[in-house]
This record gives sequence, C-alpha cells and structure tokens, in this order.
Amino acid sequence: MGEERNLERLEKQIRFIVEIDKVKNIFRQTYLADTGRRENDAEHSWHIALMAYLLREYAEEAVDVGKVMLMVLIHDLVEIDAGDTYAYDSVGAQTKRGREVAAADRIFGILPEDQGTYFRELWEEFEAYETPDAKYAHLLDNFQPLLLNDAADGLSWQEHQVKKSQIYKRNEKIEETSETVWNCMKEIIQKHIGRGHVVDA
Amino acid sequence: MGEERNLERLEKQIRFIVEIDKVKNIFRQTYLADTGRRENDAEHSWHIALMAYLLREYAEEAVDVGKVMLMVLIHDLVEIDAGDTYAYDSVGAQTKRGREVAAADRIFGILPEDQGTYFRELWEEFEAYETPDAKYAHLLDNFQPLLLNDAADGLSWQEHQVKKSQIYKRNEKIEETSETVWNCMKEIIQKHIGRGHVVDA
Ligand SMILES: [Ca+2]
Repeated sequence: MGEERNLERLEKQIRFIVEIDKVKNIFRQTYLADTGRRENDAEHSWHIALMAYLLREYAEEAVDVGKVMLMVLIHDLVEIDAGDTYAYDSVGAQTKRGREVAAADRIFGILPEDQGTYFRELWEEFEAYETPDAKYAHLLDNFQPLLLNDAADGLSWQEHQVKKSQIYKRNEKIEETSETVWNCMKEIIQKHIGRGHVVDA
Repeated sequence: MGEERNLERLEKQIRFIVEIDKVKNIFRQTYLADTGRRENDAEHSWHIALMAYLLREYAEEAVDVGKVMLMVLIHDLVEIDAGDTYAYDSVGAQTKRGREVAAADRIFGILPEDQGTYFRELWEEFEAYETPDAKYAHLLDNFQPLLLNDAADGLSWQEHQVKKSQIYKRNEKIEETSETVWNCMKEIIQKHIGRGHVVDA
C-alpha cells in the first residue's frame, strides 16, 4: 500500500521531469556569447541559478539562495505552453499573464499536489516581483542576457533597435536590489550606446 | 578602496559567468525526449538541479538539496576544456581525470579565490562519489539520461549497442543511494531489453 502510493507519486514526478524537457526547445531573443545561435530557456535558467550563488553578496537585502535557485530553475516553465515573450514586445505583454496562468495550471498540475503547489507559489512569488528573493531572481534574469548581449557585441539590441529608455524601464527595480550590479549594468549600456548598438532615447 | 576591490571581484565573477556560457555547446550522447537533437551540458545540468529538489524524498541518507543543486549545476563545467566522455567509452575514460583536473584548475581559477576554491571542492566531492550528497548527485546524473532515453525509445542505447551489464556496472551505487529509484531504473532497462534497444548481456 505504502509502496504503491510511492510509485504513483514517483510516476507523477517522472511525467513532470519528461514534460519539462520541452523547455529546451523554447528559444529566446538573446544570442549565446559566441553569437552562434540563440539561447533556450533551459540554458538561461541553468546560467542564472549558478549566478544566484555567485552574486548573492551584492543583494542589498538578505536572500535565501537555495530558494532563489529553485525559483529561477522553474521560472520559465510556463513558456512551454505560453511561448517566450520578448522583453520589449509590448503587444505580447498584454496577453502574457493569461497565457502563463493557464500554462502554470497545466504544467505544475502534473506534479504530486504538495510539490505542484510549492512550485506554483514560487512562480507566483517571482511574477509578483516584491519579495527580496523575487527581486534578486529578477536581477539575475535581467543581468544574464545583458552580459551575453555585451559579449555578443549587442547583437540582439541591434536587431530590435532597443532604446536606452526601454532598458531602464525594464530594470527600474535593479538599483534597489543591488546598487553594485546596477552600476555595472549602466556602464555596459552606456558602452553600447557609444557603439551605436543601443538607441540613446 | 573598498569599492575598487568590489569591482575587481565582480569583474572576475563576470569573466567566469561569460566563460561558462561555452558549456551550452558541449553536446552529450543523450537525445532530447522528442529525439530532435542531442542535449547539451547546460540543459542536462538544469534538468538534474531541478530533479534534486523533486526526488530528495527517495534518498536513503539525508542530503543538503541546496548544496547538491549547486554541485550538479557546476559538475560538467570541466568539459568546456576536456570534452564530454561518453559513459560507455572505456578508452576516453583512461585519460579523463587528467584532462578534467587541468580544466578545473583553469576554469575555477577565473573566480575570486574563495568562490573558486569552494566550486573546486564541490567538484572534487562529486568526482570522489562517496558522500551522501555526491551519491545523490550521481543518481540524478544517471537517472536523467535514462529517463530521456526511455522517452526517446532507447535511441542512444541502440546507437551504441549498450549492454545491460554496462548499465548495471555504471549504476552499481544507485541501489544503496535510493532503492526506489533503482527499482524504477531496473524496470526501464528491462523494458528496453524486451524491445531490443539494450543488449541482454
Ligand atoms: Ca522569460
């Protein structure tokens, strides 16, 4: 009986593990540092989970690194159904929330209830962008593509003719999350304005 | 002075973050579940870090999930220099350790010393395969490609004509790490022997 319940539980977990393999085929606008191809959501999430450990010293408020790691590992899973909405796509942004909530219902619903509920809560905390952990997760989520874009000579900014004001708007909470990281980001943005990769407007 | 030291530190961390982007181009023998292409090390590491949280209840000995997540996120970074050695490649296995140690020196050496030393220790702990955390990390590292291979109809086992005895040898410590997971793995292997994807020898 206990064994049987255990197996049913493991089966649900395995179904979820295989389902989320699909996120490896959700491609973002950001290029890899070597510009060979675009990055997918699994790679992006791997990168920022590792960064969560490395950069925690710069967070102004104390963060729970283990929790943030898990939060960022799952933060893009909804894109399996909802697709990636580019950071500067204002039309897509209007319908994003509805599409992502339906995706969260389906995907986290595959898991045993306790784990599904916890992942859903972590994802909602990330989306609400209010707690120190969520703010730090967003910092990582925004800083990583900026570093790749910098390495890739601003390729995806150039392709989308991104404006400085759009980047500043998207990153308006970074300064209160980490002054050190925000200063670094501003420097990188300024460099790419100088090179004509980001529009100075 | 403090600010300057801070910036030097952040610069090293950023150099490391951009360097490890290369692991997204290290491809493994395992196919994605949809068989569309092979999986790379970043995707694999993302997947097993997430699994570290989901499956901890099956570990026979208590594990530190946050530490295991970090351990698996970095466990394949040495392959940036050393390349991926296929689990059943006995020739490559002979030179693997030397190539990987040199890679660890270079790659973890990019980081500020405290973080580089910690990552190196985590990697050595993983490689030694002795502590409960390392054993659990290896379980994840072995279970994930088995699940993908199962979903992909045993494609990479078929390509390499892998024998049951090779899989059992590679997984000899899994039973003591988690009986539940080992039972599940045996069932999957048996199914693929039945289908002629794994050689019954
Ligand atoms: Ca996203």
